[in-house]
Formats: sequence, structure tokens, C-alpha cells
Amino acid sequence: MTSSSSKRGEFAVIADLFAPLATHKGAYRLTDDAATLTPPRGHELVITTDALVEGVHFLPGDRIARKALRVNLSDLAAKGAEPIGYLVALSLPRNIRYAWLKTFARDLAKDQEEFGISLLGGDTTSTPGPLTIAITAIGHVPKGKMLLRKGAKPGDRVFVSGAIGDAGAGLALLKKGRTAPKALIDRYRLPTPRLALGKALRGVATAALDVSDGLIADLGHISEVSKVRILVEATHIPTAHDPVFAATAGDDYEIAFTAPAGTRIKGTTEIGRVARGRGVALLDAKGREIPLKKQGYTHF
Amino acid sequence: MTSSSSKRGEFAVIADLFAPLATHKGAYRLTDDAATLTPPRGHELVITTDALVEGVHFLPGDRIARKALRVNLSDLAAKGAEPIGYLVALSLPRNIRYAWLKTFARDLAKDQEEFGISLLGGDTTSTPGPLTIAITAIGHVPKGKMLLRKGAKPGDRVFVSGAIGDAGAGLALLKKGRTAPKALIDRYRLPTPRLALGKALRGVATAALDVSDGLIADLGHISEVSKVRILVEATHIPTAHDPVFAATAGDDYEIAFTAPAGTRIKGTTEIGRVARGRGVALLDAKGREIPLKKQGYTHF
Repeated sequence: MTSSSSKRGEFAVIADLFAPLATHKGAYRLTDDAATLTPPRGHELVITTDALVEGVHFLPGDRIARKALRVNLSDLAAKGAEPIGYLVALSLPRNIRYAWLKTFARDLAKDQEEFGISLLGGDTTSTPGPLTIAITAIGHVPKGKMLLRKGAKPGDRVFVSGAIGDAGAGLALLKKGRTAPKALIDRYRLPTPRLALGKALRGVATAALDVSDGLIADLGHISEVSKVRILVEATHIPTAHDPVFAATAGDDYEIAFTAPAGTRIKGTTEIGRVARGRGVALLDAKGREIPLKKQGYTHF
Repeated sequence: MTSSSSKRGEFAVIADLFAPLATHKGAYRLTDDAATLTPPRGHELVITTDALVEGVHFLPGDRIARKALRVNLSDLAAKGAEPIGYLVALSLPRNIRYAWLKTFARDLAKDQEEFGISLLGGDTTSTPGPLTIAITAIGHVPKGKMLLRKGAKPGDRVFVSGAIGDAGAGLALLKKGRTAPKALIDRYRLPTPRLALGKALRGVATAALDVSDGLIADLGHISEVSKVRILVEATHIPTAHDPVFAATAGDDYEIAFTAPAGTRIKGTTEIGRVARGRGVALLDAKGREIPLKKQGYTHF
């Protein structure tokens, strides 16, 4: 963790909180400003970065440490990678309190234990703006085995893990000031990266990604990069909610993937098929395209 | 580059600007949300992250792309690493203009060519706050050869590359609204990562880091981690400015390092010695400690 003060000031306090999280040998207990890393033999490293901004990606006051980490681990999961560790660039409002930082570090520690990973480095700066957390997560896959957005082929089937729309429903509840049902709110606040599934999909899925912006929006990325058309059956979407809401709500952090017809993977549901063409269509029970006002979350 | 919109909206425009920068094979032209990377045989990867916030690390309106990249390359240089590439997490104010983004991408392209590196991935989000750029830079060193802050020994000499204080003088001019002398302002706006020097220091320097917060403040990190006292002769500091100002101004991005007595490295100046104890002292021509109001830049 780079410190920008030589005094035993706030940055030293932060360093003291974060140093115990740097359990990986190559992290040098954060006494340096760089980490060293080697992939296991026959493997390559997989690297991804995602930033979260208070008021944009999370609600003011949310305990965001674990979610910030997990959305990055979810990226690794969808690529078939096993996580090693992460770096954090933290931009903190000047009025941040020590108790907040302590909780932040403790929450990271919890998830490090849960996922067997280490803090590898970071940087802390002040900002006159909202709390901003940029995490770079690093994992490894056997060489050449990373799951890509590219690779879906006409005739493939489309699958998604778990259930869709719960997190979106949780966020809608929070925005109305409600705190129940807790199960839905938890799904928004604490997504579960599907790491075991991602590993199982190596050599099976033809394309994969995690559902963050919305099922339809994210399948749009596969459509664009694989140069195919994706047809999703609304009635097949695994959801307790309105399927149009569920398919466009986002924050699910499930894995959507394509695979040859006949593929069966535990914990996943077949929801559609890949065809020639471009774009994503959501179809009703009679095979008619359902018009969508939005495909998912947009920032601008 | 992760896009948060499936429409051909602003994020698609950003993707179009950044895709040509992803020249590394493992960056998949940014069509995916992760990159793959393997260090050369016998080498390990070196990873570092630094965030820059408008109004904190750079002045509003500054063309910041190259500096943001170079401060990270400077970290790699000081570790003896050769750069491979970088990831960018960009938090953009909603009123950002296309022309700004185009210039940002073009500036990155310039430095990619200069340093032989590739964009490896990134994430773009909006922010209600100031422009924030978190860069994670990745390089490689022969296994076990990374230069650390740890390792300085009593009896070692202290060295620094180039000249100190020019960038600080440049920033002071800018804050007064002046635009000349251009040489000083350029030193603030466009630091030069000392990559060739860093490589030459492998196996020679006992400890090293880059001078970002101020020579004395940064030597304080070596002192703390190496558990030694560092004595710097003010009159030996290579500077055209008042040595106290120069030693505490920061933004130099030169390499400060310790090495055994008798070491001579081209482009560096011996400025002091390592002793038993703790802390850093700046000494006058008569060997008396110069009291310092500050050791360097502090954020909080």
C-alpha cells in the first residue's frame, strides 16, 4: 500500500490496517510499492479491473468492500480462472472515519478467507468527490483455457447459472427505503462469484461472461464479439420475478454462457439458443420478440 | 474495456477509442473483460497500482494520460522491472467531452510506442466527482531480482538519479498562473520513468524506490522498511533550487537507491549514507541537521 505521507499519519494507519491482508509472499506485507507474481506451471495469469463509485454503483453508506472484491472475482469466475489476489486503489473522501476503514479491512479479510486470496498491493489517495474503489483482480487458468466472449456458434444453446432478478429486486426495495425481504437485499449487497462453475465450464462453454449490467445487455456482448444472434425464451429464465424485469435488472453476478446443444451443467438453466445474425431478442411463449425499453443498466 | 451499456452509446465510443491501444495478444482487443499474461521464462511479473485524482494529483485541465501512465512506469523502473502493459479504471465526470477522450487515448498511444507497452484492459464508469484514473501497471523481472525498499545496510551510500526539485518548481509556477520556464513545467507535467537505470540497478542497489512524494519523505520509506537511519547531505543534492525545497517538493520520479560504498552509476549522484538507527536527516555543510517543516507531500 503506497503511502503519501512519511509521518505516522492517516496513511500509516491505513497501512497498518491493510498489511495483515497481504498474506501472499509476493506482496511483501505491503512494505513495497509493487508485488511479484508467477503463474503455476502450465498456467497463465488472468487480470481484470473494475471500479465502483459511491452513488453510482453502490448506495451511500453501503458496506462495499466485499461487493467490490466479489464483482471482480465474478469476472475471474466467468473466465474459468481461479483467483490469486487483488490490488485496491482507494480514493477516500477527506471526512472518512477510522471505524469505516477498519470495517472495510475486516470485510476484505473475511472474503480473503472465504476465497483463499491475498491483497497484493494498493494505493490510497484523498478525493474531494465520492468514495471510489478500483480493484484489479488476478487469477490463473491453464494456458489457452480462458473462457472468452468470443466463440458462441449458431446452434449452441444459451445457459445461465442460479436465479436472475433477485439483486435487481433487492435494489428496488432499498431505493424505496425498505429493508426486507433480506434475502433479496443480500443478493444485491453480496453477490456470490460462481468460481466452481467457471472452472467446470473450461473446455465446455463456447463463450461466457458474468451478468452485471443485465442478462440481455450482457448477452449483447457475446452477440457482438461472437458475431451471432442470441434468442432468449422469457419463460425459461430462472426467476421469481417478472422475466422482463429480471432480464434487464443487472447486479446478478451469475454466469451466462453458450455451449453445444445437449450440454447439461448442474446449477444452470438452458434459456435460449444461438442463431446467425446479430443482437439479442427476448421471446415470449409464442416465439414473438418482446420489445424492451432498456437492455440493462446504462451509466451515461 | 468493460462497457456498461449494450447500446452503441458513449461506452461503445470509448471502446472504439481504446481498442487500438490493446496491441498485446492477451488483451483480446478489449473484446473481453480480462487479459491473459505469462512472464518470460525465468521471470516473474511485477504489479503496481496508482490512482490520480483531478484537483489532488493534477490540475484541472491538465492532459493527464501520459503522467498517469508514467508514474506507474516509474514504480516499475524503481523495482528494476521492464514494463509489459497496463490496465486503466477511468471514472469520468458526466460532462466529459469526446474531444477530451480522443486526446486521452492519443496521448496513451504516444507513450505506448515510446515505452513498448500495451493497454491490457480497463473499466469506464461515470462519477459525480472529479476525474479519477487508477492505473495498474505490469512488468517483469528475472525471478527474485525485484529491487525492494528493504535491504539498505549501515555503511551503504545513498544515491539519486537526475536532478531534484524541477517538477516541484514547475508546479509552484503553475499555481501562480505562470507558464514559463517551460522546462520546469514539463518536468512536472511529464515525468520520465528511469527504466534503463532501474534495470542497471538489479543486483547493484540494496534498496530502491521512485521519488514521488519528496526525496526525504520517500527515503523515509526505505529507512522504515530497512530499519536504518539515512543521512542526506543538502549540498550534495543535484538541484538548481534551494536544496530544502528540492528535497521535500516531490513529483520528481527519479530513482533514489542505496548501494555499497564505491558504487558508481552513470546519471546518478551520491547524496548521503546509511547508518544505524531510524529516520532521515538532511544535513548542512557542517553536518548539522536541518529542521524540516515537512518531509514531503501529504494528502490528509
